[in-house]
Amino acid sequence: MYKIGVDLGGTKIAAALVDGENRIVAKATLPTLPERGNDAVAEDIAALVKTVAEEKGAKLSDIELVGIATPGAINCDTGYIERACNLYMEHYPMVDKLRSILGDVRIALENDANAAALGEYVAGAAKGARYSVMITLGTGVGGGFVAEGKVYSGFNFAGGEFGHMVIDFDGEPCNCGRRGCWEAYSSATALIEKTRRMLEEYPDSKMHEVVKEAGKISGKTAFIAARMGDEAGRKTVDWYIAHLACGIVNVINLFQPDILCIGGGVSNEGKGLIDPLLEKIAEESFTKASDKQTEIRIAALGNEAGIIGAANL
Amino acid sequence: MYKIGVDLGGTKIAAALVDGENRIVAKATLPTLPERGNDAVAEDIAALVKTVAEEKGAKLSDIELVGIATPGAINCDTGYIERACNLYMEHYPMVDKLRSILGDVRIALENDANAAALGEYVAGAAKGARYSVMITLGTGVGGGFVAEGKVYSGFNFAGGEFGHMVIDFDGEPCNCGRRGCWEAYSSATALIEKTRRMLEEYPDSKMHEVVKEAGKISGKTAFIAARMGDEAGRKTVDWYIAHLACGIVNVINLFQPDILCIGGGVSNEGKGLIDPLLEKIAEESFTKASDKQTEIRIAALGNEAGIIGAANL
Repeated sequence: MYKIGVDLGGTKIAAALVDGENRIVAKATLPTLPERGNDAVAEDIAALVKTVAEEKGAKLSDIELVGIATPGAINCDTGYIERACNLYMEHYPMVDKLRSILGDVRIALENDANAAALGEYVAGAAKGARYSVMITLGTGVGGGFVAEGKVYSGFNFAGGEFGHMVIDFDGEPCNCGRRGCWEAYSSATALIEKTRRMLEEYPDSKMHEVVKEAGKISGKTAFIAARMGDEAGRKTVDWYIAHLACGIVNVINLFQPDILCIGGGVSNEGKGLIDPLLEKIAEESFTKASDKQTEIRIAALGNEAGIIGAANL
Repeated sequence: MYKIGVDLGGTKIAAALVDGENRIVAKATLPTLPERGNDAVAEDIAALVKTVAEEKGAKLSDIELVGIATPGAINCDTGYIERACNLYMEHYPMVDKLRSILGDVRIALENDANAAALGEYVAGAAKGARYSVMITLGTGVGGGFVAEGKVYSGFNFAGGEFGHMVIDFDGEPCNCGRRGCWEAYSSATALIEKTRRMLEEYPDSKMHEVVKEAGKISGKTAFIAARMGDEAGRKTVDWYIAHLACGIVNVINLFQPDILCIGGGVSNEGKGLIDPLLEKIAEESFTKASDKQTEIRIAALGNEAGIIGAANL
């Protein structure tokens, strides 16, 4: 039996037909163009759902579930998107609207970070875990907590805001209004900002060559320079790893998941990120070396985590 | 039908017979004297269990559950106390030992902070919540997370270490080896240390009179002086509340429980603690004022939370 996952983003909508083994067997996308209005977006989601079903000759009545992953604040019980700034949505009855077009099919809604965490849990790096946490290092620091196959997001579906855990009292300002949030140190945005400051401070750093070659400062700049033996690059990476490890150890001390997986752009550094990170985490770990420890892994599904998670809501 | 809760501490063991409405109907205590050896402690627990059962004429076969709340690291699955320093216990098979004395009765083991959280959940300040977090402000900062009636403590039973969440990167040293842990700012111990430093810094502070009258510096010193209009007292309280609120907002952003209750010695300040705390939390809250917000309450069961929680494992 097939399931359908939809990843509703600010720029595009992607829908995928997913089989029983969580393989994507058909996929279609449309630009979101949210300024057209909420109903137009919902109608396009419904059209994509029909498209991917038809591609494999599946009838909607054969579809086990249509799951939507969406940014912003949602209400899983009512199926409303309560607030999604880049979709211009406020208290929008997404599930009702889709049901009015698609008819009698099971439809579920989840926040995109939570859906990605569920995707990695059912089919990615956290497969086999009883409890898992996924941390996404991108524009912000997102995350999701999955316990025994279910996304946990608290009584108001607003939990799992890992990025907005203060790790440095009165520290860097954060978009959320607090100071010292983990996101202000461990997002790709924060890494780029730190790199920019270090470039200023170290005019002889090899990071300047890396930036020249790439045409811009990115989350990779410091990692590349550090591998070239550049001191400022290494210092930048050390700073980044120290703050990332701090937040991860916090998450472990609170949740003790079997597996914690790391996704998002920065996670593409792979071993260059994970090896020094594991060293730092071992130093700070509260549980003894002899105890069972949380396994840290790089996320496996990339951009498809959200869509596969949505199909498994 | 009766249940029995046991609170195993470093100085005393308390056992209570608890009825179906979670009322304590019989209670007995013995000194722990852990230096006698682990088996002697277990035998005294069993004796207390029999004593409180007999007091109401209940047979052990009529007892639904014997639950033990104990400090340190435990394994709920095997019933071993893995490590409890002040009990001199290391990998001790508490449940097996008790079963060998008590016979065929259901016996469960839980960490004392988690048991207290469960106690408040079933019969105290968090009654009626779907998800609750309890934070205990005592010698350290302890806590427990209860989801849908069950204690959550991760895959290795070591989760819920709220006190060992870093809130101030590279800040005050903590017993756990990290720096800047919440416990190093929000425990009664940290409040007393801060008060001591402020007394030094402000030789004219009314806190000196408060200390003279009480005969010692305590967690109350600054609160009393602040109520007398003392500036140093108020500054100490403000410092304490700011760090406490920081950790609480972190916990809310991660867990979004319906109810978060605060217990431990410092919580006896009641309104003097909770009113400025709520103000600070509202300032830092990530969810909008219009959203459903976590309710903050003072714990209701005091020292009996652990015993009542244990009886409900």
